[in-house]
Parts: sequence; structure tokens; C-alpha cells
Amino acid sequence: MNVIYEQVLSSQKPNKPGKRLRAIEWVDNHVRIIDFSALPDKIRYLDIKSIKEMFNAIKSMSLHETPLISIAIAYGMYLGAEEFPEDRTKEDFLAFVEKNARHLSSACGPTRNISGVLDRLLSLAKDPAPDKNICKIKDALLAEANRILLENMIASKRIGEIGYQVLRKYSSILVYCNTGDFTGADFRSALSPIYFAAEQGQQLHVYINEVHTTTQGSRLAALELAHAGISVTVINDSATASLMASGAIDAVLVSADRVASNGDAASNIGTYGLAVLARYHRIPFYVVAPFSAFDLTLESGKDIFIERESRLICYQIEPNVPPINIPFFEAEFDITPHECIDGIITEEGILEQPFAEIRQNALA
Amino acid sequence: MNVIYEQVLSSQKPNKPGKRLRAIEWVDNHVRIIDFSALPDKIRYLDIKSIKEMFNAIKSMSLHETPLISIAIAYGMYLGAEEFPEDRTKEDFLAFVEKNARHLSSACGPTRNISGVLDRLLSLAKDPAPDKNICKIKDALLAEANRILLENMIASKRIGEIGYQVLRKYSSILVYCNTGDFTGADFRSALSPIYFAAEQGQQLHVYINEVHTTTQGSRLAALELAHAGISVTVINDSATASLMASGAIDAVLVSADRVASNGDAASNIGTYGLAVLARYHRIPFYVVAPFSAFDLTLESGKDIFIERESRLICYQIEPNVPPINIPFFEAEFDITPHECIDGIITEEGILEQPFAEIRQNALA
Repeated sequence: MNVIYEQVLSSQKPNKPGKRLRAIEWVDNHVRIIDFSALPDKIRYLDIKSIKEMFNAIKSMSLHETPLISIAIAYGMYLGAEEFPEDRTKEDFLAFVEKNARHLSSACGPTRNISGVLDRLLSLAKDPAPDKNICKIKDALLAEANRILLENMIASKRIGEIGYQVLRKYSSILVYCNTGDFTGADFRSALSPIYFAAEQGQQLHVYINEVHTTTQGSRLAALELAHAGISVTVINDSATASLMASGAIDAVLVSADRVASNGDAASNIGTYGLAVLARYHRIPFYVVAPFSAFDLTLESGKDIFIERESRLICYQIEPNVPPINIPFFEAEFDITPHECIDGIITEEGILEQPFAEIRQNALA
Repeated sequence: MNVIYEQVLSSQKPNKPGKRLRAIEWVDNHVRIIDFSALPDKIRYLDIKSIKEMFNAIKSMSLHETPLISIAIAYGMYLGAEEFPEDRTKEDFLAFVEKNARHLSSACGPTRNISGVLDRLLSLAKDPAPDKNICKIKDALLAEANRILLENMIASKRIGEIGYQVLRKYSSILVYCNTGDFTGADFRSALSPIYFAAEQGQQLHVYINEVHTTTQGSRLAALELAHAGISVTVINDSATASLMASGAIDAVLVSADRVASNGDAASNIGTYGLAVLARYHRIPFYVVAPFSAFDLTLESGKDIFIERESRLICYQIEPNVPPINIPFFEAEFDITPHECIDGIITEEGILEQPFAEIRQNALA
């Protein structure tokens, strides 16, 4: 994995519509990603040329946000398959590809919904046309990864257009978590409708929660929006309730990493609390999620596995004195129940309470 | 202001009931305080011998939390008066004392309710018995400051006993903000009932919000409780809603810096959001406040002045490139409306909705 070049962010002129940062691209037989760990100081691009490098990039959080990781996984599957010698059997190839799928999957947390992407690539290897040799199957895997990237870009644009139908009614939006240019190829999840609205000339002010656990809000989403010339204020997470009570916020947009078939959504920790605050203050609360985030095998949010961590805060004051250890509870995600969600903005339209369309699809 | 000694916290044995940290004391003609800025690494005591040193200690946040600051203000008034030459007139003395009151007052933010303490000391200087010379008035000021300290200690104990009537029904309590030994002489506000319950042998688990704006929760309250041998877990502020939904929390205790006559309470930023979350999850929400925090001249929380800050986050990436500035919104306090509060625990009893007793006192 080589750092190919570093671009100093503030020396760039604000992006013009149509010219955007690309968090992931396929360039000259390899993947190029923006290294999240260098943000917001620098936009550093990494070239990824093997499944091992892709595994490390996901594991080390150089990449995050599910849409981006899904695309990365697809290319990782291709890069892995490329390493298989072409003189061996298709059965061995399938076993090899399946092992790669498990390996890449283990780099992500259990909350991320990447099984759809893996299934698409695995089915190409499992059930190829009889005339396809391993070389052609490899080509098909690359074509599928490129298709997933393209679908993601189209979905983003559609989500922007559809979300704009909601946004156009409001002038002040609260956004939780980093969900913009850095979340996917050209996919911006909760920020997509905001970019689309800005392109339509709508005057919109965006409040961004700092998201103090990762500072993704203040470090990434805010910087990205300000850089794009959109009016933005970062707010202290603890001041959200006061700001809502003051009437400053017209609607809330958040993203989701996984949506169950009853509309319950798993998102960055803090989203559920925000949903409750929005409900209490009668502020419309919208989840922005592409179809790839929906997992119709899950009946409700209870079936979404959330890793909870409990570490110790250690106050070691002097070397020879026993430390005072205090348990610290945290989690990366939480579940927002569907009853707190006014609508889910997808690339095909806005799903609304009681989210019967999702369940119908689950039954179909 | 001299640092008299530093005591390494973890080398102390856990406190036994009756032997406690003293955040403020009157010792040999001066005030001794614990320097908050050295916590949680060290317990450092400062000796304060003049009004100027007291002003600086308040201004520099070596002291915080209203009960503690009230006592500090009272002693500061005495230390100031001590500097007045005794051969001048009582009128000059009164003007001098009034100037000192304005000066000390300016060291505190406008949200803190310290006018009651100032009034008590000013009235001694304003309307002394005819036979009292300036020397005797100075003695009276010191006696009054000592009385305020003692009242504070008695109120703390009473609040502990009364709050225990609420706590004894629960086994798991969430506490927001630092409100323990470090908040006043022997006064612990929201932690008072917890200490009292522990002394009664009640098995209680305490969850402490980290309070990420100041880390008062994880730095101070948690350390203090763990040090005292009470079972404690710090929780990530953003995980509070999830933890409530999981059923882990039986009741919430918070403190207040100011309470209006309708029961609205001004507390550390984030308290209001916590109250809304508690309401949504049907978890009893109690404010712990001594009478000194009540300001019956205020009709509602709307009359409590809250300073809101808006600063800029600046991403300066290279010296010769213009920085990207993003506004950041925050506030030190918020207002919890009385409809979100199940009860206010005071030294005389538990006030309950619709808080008619407070209003009756306001009319009386």
C-alpha cells in the first residue's frame, strides 16, 4: 500500500458542482482510496493492489462507513481472486474465493451489512457459465465490482433528488455523523440531499453534531460541507436538546448502517438519543439509507448484533502506587426503533411509517 | 496563593464514613481549597489569604460548582473587608464592601445564584448595631461566612437523608456531572444521597456520564466515588439512550445551579437532554438542589440568563494557506423545564410536581 500523493485540503478551491472528492475509485488495475486517518489535515490517497492491503485498510479504519466498505469489499474480492493460479480447478477457485470472503468479512464489525455484496460476487464464482474459464470469472468479478461502484453513484444521486423533496420544505437541518463525500464513491448518504438542494440553489443552513466519540462530525462532515461552500455550524452534542428547544432546527437527517425489515435502524452511537430528542420536540426525523443497507432477513432491530465495549479508565498517578480502575461503557452503534423515524429516504422513494413496504419486500 | 502540599490521591486509603475530603475549609485565618485544576491527578490544596487570591481562584476555575463558590464568596468578602483601614468611616467601609461584592460577583458567570450569600454579608455591613465598630463588623462577616459553611454541611447531610428516601427504592442510578465531595465543604448535592445510602449499607450501582464537555463525570465524580469504594461505571454520553432502553437505569439524579419558582432548573449543559431521555424511557428524574440554589425572583427558566458561546473551529493546515473556519455552538448550562422533573430533593424535603410549594414561597 503506497501513499501516492498528499493534497493539502485548504489549498483546493471549493468544489464546483460535478467536481467532487472521490473516496474510492478504480484506477489502472488497482483501487485508490482516501485515507480517513489523515483527515481532516490532509487528503491522502492510498493505492491498494492486493486483498491483504484491502483487509488492512478496512481493519485499520483507513476506510469507514458501510457504503464505502461494501465497494472496497467487492474490489478486495477481485484483487484476491487475481492471485489464484489459472491452471487449477474451478472447485479450488471457488474454495479460495469463499475463504477470501470470510477473511474480508472478518475485517468489518458485525453490524455492517456487507453480505449482499459478498453474495453477488460469490454467486459469480459458484455458478459460472460452463464456457467460462477462471480467467473469465475473474473478469466477471471485476465487472461486478465496477457495477457495484456505479450503482452506488447512481443511488447517491437518486437519494439526493428524493431527499430534496423532504429538504425543500426546511431551511435548517441537523445532521448526525460523517455521511458525505468520504462515505462512498460519489455517495453521500445523509449529505446527498443537502448537496442536491445546494445545487438547486436552496438556501439551507446545516447544523452538524460534533459526534464527540469520533469527532467525525466536526472533523469530516463539517469540513467537507464548509469546503463545498455550504453554510454549516458544528454543535456540541450536549447542546442539541437546547438547540432543538430554541426552535433552530427544522428537521434531522441521519444515516444508517443497517435497516431491519420493520424499519428499525442501526446507526452511529448517539443516533437513537437524537431520535428521541427530535420526537420530544416534534422535529421530523429522517434516516437516509440505500437499499444496500436493508437486511430483510432481520425482523427487527433486536436481531442486529451490537458490540458493546466495556474498558477500564485507569488513573495511574504514581509509578509505585496501585492504579484506580473504573469501568467505562461504550458502544459503536445503537438501534433507532422505527416508531422514532418519520421516513427512510432510499434511492427508490421515501418509506414511511408503518414501513409496510419493507415488510412486503421481506415476504416477497 | 501558595500551594501548601500535594497529596497523591491513590496513595490514600478509601475514605471511611465520617472522614472525607474537604473542598473548602477555614484554617488559621485563611481559606484552604482543593485546586480543581490539579484533579484527578493530584489533590492539591491552595491557601487563600486575600480577596484578590479568591477572585483569581474563582475566575480561573480552581473552584467550580455553585455551593462551593458561594462559600468561597462569603470568605472572600471577609478577606476583602479585612484589608480596610479601621480608622475610616462606616460609610466608606460600606462602599468598600459593596465594591468588593461587585468585584467577586464578576468572577462568576451570570447563571450562578450567589446573590443570596452576598445579600447576607452586605446587610451586616449596611445595617450594623450602633455600638459596632468596623472591627466588630469584620468579625461579624467572618462569623457569617463560617455560618454559611456550617449550613452548607448540615444541608448536605439532610439532603443525603432525604434523597435516600428516593434512592432506597432503586439499585442502579445514573448521575450527570460532578456533584460530590469536590462541590462544597461537606456538601455533595446529587452524590449526597448516594453516600448516605452507602453508609446505610444499601447495594447501589452508580452510572456516571462522562460529561464530555468538561470530563467532570469521568475525571471527578467517578474517581471520587470509586475512591470511596462505591460501585461505579462511567458511560459514554452518547450511549445513555441505549443504556436507558436496555433497562439498566432505575433513576436519574442531577444537580442544579439555579432553580426558578416554577421548578425549572439550570444545570450543566446536557442535563436537559438527559431529562427528555429519562421521560421517554419512563425513568424517574430527580434534581438535587439546596435552598441556596432557588431564586424565587425568577418566574421560570426563561428568566435565567444562559451564556451561549459561538467560537470558530479553525483548520489551519499549512502556514501560508488561508484557514477554513467553521462556527461551533456550545453553552455551559441548559434549562430543564419542570415538566421533565419528577422531584427536587432539598434539605427540607422532596418538592414534587406541580412544585406549588416553591411558588407559594415566592408569593410569601
